[in-house]
Amino acid sequence: MNIPASLARLVDELARLPGIGHKTAQRLAFFVLRENETYARDLAQALLEVKAKITFCIQCFGYAEAALCPVCQDTRRDDGLLCVVEQPNNIFVIERSGVFQGRYHVLMGAISPLDGIGPAQLKIKELEARLALQPVREVIIATNPSMEGEATALHLARLLEPRGVKLTRLARGMPVGGSLEFTDDVTLHQAFSGRQHFGG
Amino acid sequence: MNIPASLARLVDELARLPGIGHKTAQRLAFFVLRENETYARDLAQALLEVKAKITFCIQCFGYAEAALCPVCQDTRRDDGLLCVVEQPNNIFVIERSGVFQGRYHVLMGAISPLDGIGPAQLKIKELEARLALQPVREVIIATNPSMEGEATALHLARLLEPRGVKLTRLARGMPVGGSLEFTDDVTLHQAFSGRQHFGG
Repeated sequence: MNIPASLARLVDELARLPGIGHKTAQRLAFFVLRENETYARDLAQALLEVKAKITFCIQCFGYAEAALCPVCQDTRRDDGLLCVVEQPNNIFVIERSGVFQGRYHVLMGAISPLDGIGPAQLKIKELEARLALQPVREVIIATNPSMEGEATALHLARLLEPRGVKLTRLARGMPVGGSLEFTDDVTLHQAFSGRQHFGG
Repeated sequence: MNIPASLARLVDELARLPGIGHKTAQRLAFFVLRENETYARDLAQALLEVKAKITFCIQCFGYAEAALCPVCQDTRRDDGLLCVVEQPNNIFVIERSGVFQGRYHVLMGAISPLDGIGPAQLKIKELEARLALQPVREVIIATNPSMEGEATALHLARLLEPRGVKLTRLARGMPVGGSLEFTDDVTLHQAFSGRQHFGG
């Protein structure tokens, strides 16, 4: 196809983004071409900076630009509430809804024997270390309502029960088989307010 | 919201793309974060290169990396057929379908009195100059089937009729009120094969 090489390359790179097909990638590339030069530069710089600056928080394993992420740095958060999620981006879905004012802990995955991911591959030892040091009164397990998320939640429940800490999980207002990523704010509010005791 | 600054900035920049809302921009940003570093670098470089390298072809005003665009450089194209489009990106829609083997001429817009765009603002003088120099036997007017596109087509038909060149326009298989940008290949094939004489 008769398309300048640099334009074809931009279309190919954009088409690698999730949910962006070839035609959409073409539309985005043409938009970049038509926009003034600062937009391409701003977007390029934002892409490079995110990879250069973002690391994992040394305490909760959320995304951070310093040793601690913005939530761990925030002195107004409730230290007594700890919400356990699978992935760093899950934090932003909950933060966006404004429903939760405690702390987070990211497991960096979920138990999935087929993928070779067991408890040892997740940040569970680090979770136990936090619970030993910090005055947590309730652990809210917010893993995905999927096979792997449920297996992880059950494992955590059995592991943490002897500690005497209150263990809850998000209410089943969430669509089973779905993903935290796409849960809307209203459902998320219901899931937080209706959170249930483990084994109850 | 507790989100690292560089990540928030990438989401904002991505959300400026057409058809990309805030939630989709977040998903794309997280994808970039999770991918290895080369992807962010490749995409950033592709964005900068496209703005640095792409100019307008001095002959047809399509996108080019050299003085002439790939179509104008291609010696196998039929010099006798000239397809007139509104925008440079329209060329790629037609090229993608593979239905046309002639040359192009980009008007760089369409007549739109409300936006202050008249014939003088379009590359019409340049089209006349090409027709005076090159052995064109048929001009296919492929402006959009919109108010502005139709006005432009009629203006061109009146202007070029005295030259005795065969004037056609794409068949009305195209949805009226639509845009060349989103026409599928099958419709485009029908529109090319059923192209009609002006005034016929």
